[in-house]
Amino acid sequence: MNDVVVFSGSAHMDLARRICSHLGVRLSPVEIKRFSNDCLQAQLLANCRKQDVYLIQPLVPPTQEHLMELLLMIDAARGASAGQITVVMPHYAYARSDKKDASRISLGGRLVADLIKTAGADRVLTMALHAPQVHGFFSMPVDHLTAIGVLADHFRGTDLRDSIVVSPDLGNAKVATLFARLLGLPVAAGAKQRVADDRVIIDSIVGDVRGRRAIILDDEIATGGSMVELIDRLRDEGATGASVVCTHGLFAGKAVERLRGHPWVTEVVTTDTVPRPADWPELRTISVAQLFAEAISRIHHGRSVSSLFEGVDPAYAPPQARLPFETTV
Amino acid sequence: MNDVVVFSGSAHMDLARRICSHLGVRLSPVEIKRFSNDCLQAQLLANCRKQDVYLIQPLVPPTQEHLMELLLMIDAARGASAGQITVVMPHYAYARSDKKDASRISLGGRLVADLIKTAGADRVLTMALHAPQVHGFFSMPVDHLTAIGVLADHFRGTDLRDSIVVSPDLGNAKVATLFARLLGLPVAAGAKQRVADDRVIIDSIVGDVRGRRAIILDDEIATGGSMVELIDRLRDEGATGASVVCTHGLFAGKAVERLRGHPWVTEVVTTDTVPRPADWPELRTISVAQLFAEAISRIHHGRSVSSLFEGVDPAYAPPQARLPFETTV
Amino acid sequence: MNDVVVFSGSAHMDLARRICSHLGVRLSPVEIKRFSNDCLQAQLLANCRKQDVYLIQPLVPPTQEHLMELLLMIDAARGASAGQITVVMPHYAYARSDKKDASRISLGGRLVADLIKTAGADRVLTMALHAPQVHGFFSMPVDHLTAIGVLADHFRGTDLRDSIVVSPDLGNAKVATLFARLLGLPVAAGAKQRVADDRVIIDSIVGDVRGRRAIILDDEIATGGSMVELIDRLRDEGATGASVVCTHGLFAGKAVERLRGHPWVTEVVTTDTVPRPADWPELRTISVAQLFAEAISRIHHGRSVSSLFEGVDPAYAPPQARLPFETTV
Amino acid sequence: MNDVVVFSGSAHMDLARRICSHLGVRLSPVEIKRFSNDCLQAQLLANCRKQDVYLIQPLVPPTQEHLMELLLMIDAARGASAGQITVVMPHYAYARSDKKDASRISLGGRLVADLIKTAGADRVLTMALHAPQVHGFFSMPVDHLTAIGVLADHFRGTDLRDSIVVSPDLGNAKVATLFARLLGLPVAAGAKQRVADDRVIIDSIVGDVRGRRAIILDDEIATGGSMVELIDRLRDEGATGASVVCTHGLFAGKAVERLRGHPWVTEVVTTDTVPRPADWPELRTISVAQLFAEAISRIHHGRSVSSLFEGVDPAYAPPQARLPFETTV
Amino acid sequence: MNDVVVFSGSAHMDLARRICSHLGVRLSPVEIKRFSNDCLQAQLLANCRKQDVYLIQPLVPPTQEHLMELLLMIDAARGASAGQITVVMPHYAYARSDKKDASRISLGGRLVADLIKTAGADRVLTMALHAPQVHGFFSMPVDHLTAIGVLADHFRGTDLRDSIVVSPDLGNAKVATLFARLLGLPVAAGAKQRVADDRVIIDSIVGDVRGRRAIILDDEIATGGSMVELIDRLRDEGATGASVVCTHGLFAGKAVERLRGHPWVTEVVTTDTVPRPADWPELRTISVAQLFAEAISRIHHGRSVSSLFEGVDPAYAPPQARLPFETTV
Amino acid sequence: MNDVVVFSGSAHMDLARRICSHLGVRLSPVEIKRFSNDCLQAQLLANCRKQDVYLIQPLVPPTQEHLMELLLMIDAARGASAGQITVVMPHYAYARSDKKDASRISLGGRLVADLIKTAGADRVLTMALHAPQVHGFFSMPVDHLTAIGVLADHFRGTDLRDSIVVSPDLGNAKVATLFARLLGLPVAAGAKQRVADDRVIIDSIVGDVRGRRAIILDDEIATGGSMVELIDRLRDEGATGASVVCTHGLFAGKAVERLRGHPWVTEVVTTDTVPRPADWPELRTISVAQLFAEAISRIHHGRSVSSLFEGVDPAYAPPQARLPFETTV
Repeated sequence: MNDVVVFSGSAHMDLARRICSHLGVRLSPVEIKRFSNDCLQAQLLANCRKQDVYLIQPLVPPTQEHLMELLLMIDAARGASAGQITVVMPHYAYARSDKKDASRISLGGRLVADLIKTAGADRVLTMALHAPQVHGFFSMPVDHLTAIGVLADHFRGTDLRDSIVVSPDLGNAKVATLFARLLGLPVAAGAKQRVADDRVIIDSIVGDVRGRRAIILDDEIATGGSMVELIDRLRDEGATGASVVCTHGLFAGKAVERLRGHPWVTEVVTTDTVPRPADWPELRTISVAQLFAEAISRIHHGRSVSSLFEGVDPAYAPPQARLPFETTV
Repeated sequence: MNDVVVFSGSAHMDLARRICSHLGVRLSPVEIKRFSNDCLQAQLLANCRKQDVYLIQPLVPPTQEHLMELLLMIDAARGASAGQITVVMPHYAYARSDKKDASRISLGGRLVADLIKTAGADRVLTMALHAPQVHGFFSMPVDHLTAIGVLADHFRGTDLRDSIVVSPDLGNAKVATLFARLLGLPVAAGAKQRVADDRVIIDSIVGDVRGRRAIILDDEIATGGSMVELIDRLRDEGATGASVVCTHGLFAGKAVERLRGHPWVTEVVTTDTVPRPADWPELRTISVAQLFAEAISRIHHGRSVSSLFEGVDPAYAPPQARLPFETTV
Repeated sequence: MNDVVVFSGSAHMDLARRICSHLGVRLSPVEIKRFSNDCLQAQLLANCRKQDVYLIQPLVPPTQEHLMELLLMIDAARGASAGQITVVMPHYAYARSDKKDASRISLGGRLVADLIKTAGADRVLTMALHAPQVHGFFSMPVDHLTAIGVLADHFRGTDLRDSIVVSPDLGNAKVATLFARLLGLPVAAGAKQRVADDRVIIDSIVGDVRGRRAIILDDEIATGGSMVELIDRLRDEGATGASVVCTHGLFAGKAVERLRGHPWVTEVVTTDTVPRPADWPELRTISVAQLFAEAISRIHHGRSVSSLFEGVDPAYAPPQARLPFETTV
Repeated sequence: MNDVVVFSGSAHMDLARRICSHLGVRLSPVEIKRFSNDCLQAQLLANCRKQDVYLIQPLVPPTQEHLMELLLMIDAARGASAGQITVVMPHYAYARSDKKDASRISLGGRLVADLIKTAGADRVLTMALHAPQVHGFFSMPVDHLTAIGVLADHFRGTDLRDSIVVSPDLGNAKVATLFARLLGLPVAAGAKQRVADDRVIIDSIVGDVRGRRAIILDDEIATGGSMVELIDRLRDEGATGASVVCTHGLFAGKAVERLRGHPWVTEVVTTDTVPRPADWPELRTISVAQLFAEAISRIHHGRSVSSLFEGVDPAYAPPQARLPFETTV
Repeated sequence: MNDVVVFSGSAHMDLARRICSHLGVRLSPVEIKRFSNDCLQAQLLANCRKQDVYLIQPLVPPTQEHLMELLLMIDAARGASAGQITVVMPHYAYARSDKKDASRISLGGRLVADLIKTAGADRVLTMALHAPQVHGFFSMPVDHLTAIGVLADHFRGTDLRDSIVVSPDLGNAKVATLFARLLGLPVAAGAKQRVADDRVIIDSIVGDVRGRRAIILDDEIATGGSMVELIDRLRDEGATGASVVCTHGLFAGKAVERLRGHPWVTEVVTTDTVPRPADWPELRTISVAQLFAEAISRIHHGRSVSSLFEGVDPAYAPPQARLPFETTV
Repeated sequence: MNDVVVFSGSAHMDLARRICSHLGVRLSPVEIKRFSNDCLQAQLLANCRKQDVYLIQPLVPPTQEHLMELLLMIDAARGASAGQITVVMPHYAYARSDKKDASRISLGGRLVADLIKTAGADRVLTMALHAPQVHGFFSMPVDHLTAIGVLADHFRGTDLRDSIVVSPDLGNAKVATLFARLLGLPVAAGAKQRVADDRVIIDSIVGDVRGRRAIILDDEIATGGSMVELIDRLRDEGATGASVVCTHGLFAGKAVERLRGHPWVTEVVTTDTVPRPADWPELRTISVAQLFAEAISRIHHGRSVSSLFEGVDPAYAPPQARLPFETTV
């Protein structure tokens, strides 16, 4: 593609390379320099004047470093007279700071969206925001992709008899419901109470999981603490095993330890929006690189991105206009 | 209070007068003029130079008219060199447009927040936003009140044996949980699917309601369609009756007809964030005027608003810092 | 034309269809939804990514509804990554709120211009603003068309002997003077005093109208009250009859009643910047659709819009550079 | 007054001193430096941290120099943490560039208003803007004073029998009408056509001036060319003499020569919004310093400025709410 | 002091406590929380509605973490309706990214200033910016302090015979010149060429250092590499020893190792704008806490901050108005 | 080139014509009008809708007039729907106001950059800013050219034996060092102290100039006072003569008189960024028109501007990525 220049920060070079490979463009180099006072500087090593520039950087740990890299790359692209700057942020970690649930706390989800605007971005391309309202925190167009289509594809060939999709959180059961419909499965959900950032109690399971294999779908797994809680509760309720599926597989803290060895977990499936953990060969990673490449291509050529999720199955993804809700779940 | 000037648009003069009465200040007059081409003009009929100005206007039908009145009043106050302009918007109707669930739709919740900013407001004082994330749509400080304290007070003296708090929506069960805790009651919830704007299907009830009187708590009742669906389902599940409670009692369309004559509904309780329907004397309205007056007084005197909800029960309201989640629900 | 997408709000679909017909593009559909709490939502039903988008909506009654529709459509287009958003607003009703002629009043003409900017518009295409200074209220380029050329064409073939152009207002006599010159006629004017929004007193007629047929030209007729006053005064001064001509024929309130049956009015001529009244078959409507289509085409192709009014007669329109004022009027 | 600091650029130090004298505060010194490359620099020589700062500077020739001085003073005050910055601009020369009457021309009236905003001003205090719509060019509060009260006072003690107020321009006759009412006199107007910036042709006089002494009231006199044209025409129509009155007496080019020696002009009366010409001792200058001082005092103390023009005669000034238009003119 | 609330991020709590102690106010607590996905959240644990809020945070390593803490604290304070937010940033590390000396590099000094603005800060209080032009990167008032007065005090009582002040960089010799004048000493400078971020070559010494003890003054010492280079060169030129003095003693990398054991360095003197290194007891730290406390007090009470540096010696500090340059150096 | 429209203000029409000649496009006419109240108005006399517009105007005396012309041209271009507006400002005079070296002074370099932004410019193309940090004052992309390549070319053919490049200011010796390296010459510098705007004292010469001809390179010569001081000092130090070279040859005040007749000055070489003085035929002017034309062409075609300075000699210009500093100076 002409006039397209793609750069990547240091957060996830593998994904960037995969996206470029699908796009058929080379990944242009960036030099990130760290000064002796720990300040960062970004230099884009390819001309981007009047070009359609894409900056790939999911916000993964060390999050502040990667955020600053991103802001500096945006600033450099703007200063270099880029035509359009699209931030490709497969995982927007600050989306979790989306409400004021205590007095005088910061609202990181909105603040970081404003910082990205200030640095000079024109558009954001992201995936599976923690809450759909976070879209409205950005003062620029956001193209919001979903991975549930490619995740469902993973299960399509397998034996799904006696399976049930389980959402860990009743409040966010909508995506799990769409996922279940894609697979023609019923859905259940856990009623969870968050106690602290990494500790939740699952009170009860809504829906009948007895004698069924649970396919648990979550948007993000960080420490895996609540996932393990949920699995225990599902076992109590008579489920026969669990597959764990998520879009953003951060697997921070003890997550690998908790999930890798869990006797009751058949498989863990995630995508490559974030780098995979180093020591977990059995982890099944489905790439979303092609999805991002296709979205970038459509953005560049002025074609619809939402229609990317139409076709085979109308329920593939938000944004999605008129869902036929006649199907019972 | 010195230096405080309160104006009200035409949306809800009664509430404005009640708030002023609690504040001990007079409600200053506004002249809203409609030109022959249907354009509106607002004139503030009291000096507000360097004053701390409060403009009271919930966004109730006709919503566009009331929104434009509000924007014109803000513009007039700014042009008149007001010191600080606080929009007192007890009901923010556009909060429901909080996500892009279809291709190329407007995001009214964010847009209207931006319009209010553009007109010149410095701060918003509101109550019970449809989703807590909507707070982040405003590019200015928001003081977000809750009515569940005063609603709970209504029930405190009554016989609550065999009662259970019911949330119509599993996704928003958090507020109902707080409400239940204030009354020392258990909580249940309906799993609802929204089919169209005013039609939902309640799939199932989570929690055991058999033999109990349901106290159903919702943030807003518009046409009452989903409420009636829920009541039917509760009856199927063996509940013995229902009290219906909500913060924003819009009662649009057939709502009065549906709820007023419902044989199974003991009482309907709401607040005065919006005007009460004309022909429903049995409707119980708990005033939030004192709460708004106290918040305005604290804003004016630089005292904490969140601490307004501390004291007797720490779970009264968001914003709320460290909730002790040890209570089982 | 490639890359052009035209949408229309509900204010004046007929005009939108006529403009599209002249442009040779289809009018793309919009879905305006009204929620049960009276909030509106706009959905654009055609891809507009990177497209040159035109949103047609004159601000006619119900004005607040149509304004909000427009703002929501702009917001939706921006969120959908439109390339350029041009608001085509043939009648800008809020232009009449253009000055602070009382203490602490709103300045709607400026405020609404700012709201349109905030929603995300890049350019405005409008016609016959109430005062030329209103152009300066917009913080974006404005293409300002005039209808006096097409209105003059209507009279060109007719018998103009003993006719005289009359401006209702001495203060705005400039446009009438240009119109008179296009027809080779003399000009007169009424000295009017506005008493209230819909009631004026015509004090006197400047210029000799005795024995002449008056062609009265105004920018907008709302209730027609001042027009009837002027006609009475012209009759007193010896005029022999009147044609009434205006760009924006709102004909609100009693206007149809007043003008349709007036024994002394030969004909009433207007344009289709606003929808025509339902029950007035004799009303002569000259379409400006072709003019708007030509302007849109020139905007899209980067050609001069002002030159659209050059050619046959240099006095056709503002903007107009060097008027030769040697002609006596 | 505490916390008030007044500075003046070099445009009109006399007026600044008079205003300060009425206010009872000292005029704080400013050092304006010109570098060898002709750039200017402003230094405020008094502390203004958290103070209520007033910067006095009418835009008089050399206009660009004085505008830049003003912008630099605003920038310096903002950088010095001024509390509130009010630009006191008794004459806003760029108000005359208020419309796009030619293709691709600048709109100086709006642009300069935006520059003043960008530099950091919070409010503008001005007098007799060329058109009332110019108020709407400023994106900040504007207090707009009128001099017609103090100008009328000048004539109150004199013999006004057989006098008539004359407006040079039918389009701006409103202010002259108010002025006439203050003096209990009739009003007439010239119908003028502007040919170039400094040359107009007066076509006719509206109203009967025969046998009367004309008191001609204009907002601004620059070269005096059109004034002399009007006087000639008034003589033709049988007027017996003329007093010339204006708010902004610029008297540029040949104005002094034209008016000072005019055999038919009894007196020329103006205010001190701009410096008086050097060589014209007979020119009668009425000071508006007290009016500005009173407005500054009211702004500082949070009292109404518009009420400054109420009292003895309700028609004194814009902004003015409900004018009783029952008086015939 | 009433209405003053001081918070500190985690960068330098000691300095914050010292400043508060001088101010006589308590340091209000902040809770900085790190989520399992490495995102940060700030909660201010004291009411700051309408208060004059000061947020203390020098940008020291880990710089990105401390910057994000700062931005989140600003956001929290703004959301909590703080009256005025002053960022107290004793060391602005990103000031070193002040120019585009390569193609397509970021300009961190300007970007971070814009981020601080976006988060909601109203004013910055800082010390010894790397270049005086960096002041102009901030779109808000900056109070820029200097430490050379307190550093000179340190040397005043000592034997200064045969001493000479040395600037490491001819390009920034101005501050060293002021410092030398405060002590009545001559000045010399190194002509340095920067090769990479932490490696420079000192080409030559300007001025005669033979037989003199050098007092080397720099704004910041990071790795100390260039300082050691300079010392070697001074020894070559016949100097007899060196005292090393700097405002911002970062002492990163091998700095402590290089300077602590250097046989030729008599003493190293710095301030507490940044935390002192752990293992260097001989390092002489002069506190600037009192200077910051006094500046905060003056900002709060609306008194001049620049005058803080007048008095005993007019050359104490920038900003500094009229330096008498007659003294030869 | 298609879609490129070039306009010039009145500051330097010769340069504009030369640039257009190199570009192969015609210079489109502008009409600058001065009203009788000294206000300016700009009218662009060529269509620029959707065009790539270049406005050429160095800020030379009368600086305020030329700045206002520029701002009005930008405003006119934006109002005329220009596609992209690039300000071509070969000399940015206000760059010298780049720091707050006194209390409460304006920061003209930043302010004027903000005014240019407010008027509507999208990009700046300039040459030899007084300090490289000034780049960061602009909130838009800046393409910053250097003339040292073309100035060095002038000397390449001549006899350079026994020559030495001299920088008048040790603080800005970096550019002179690059220049010396281009010519393979050594470099020296004067240590200067600025006393007032046009008077400096040269204290000493760093480097050995004895027996050498000095090629003195400065960015700008205004009154020439400090240049003459430097020449005297060089003579004292044993230099044998001087060539004077600068980018911006303003030659204000007595500069021509001082330099033209100076017995010791062999030649004076400058560029045409500013108009040449009227009466100095021997002044050697090297045109930078081709450089600007090439930069405009590259901006328009989306090619790299920085690479314009690569090639023959990598040290040609900032922006310049990785300078090989191994050469000794």
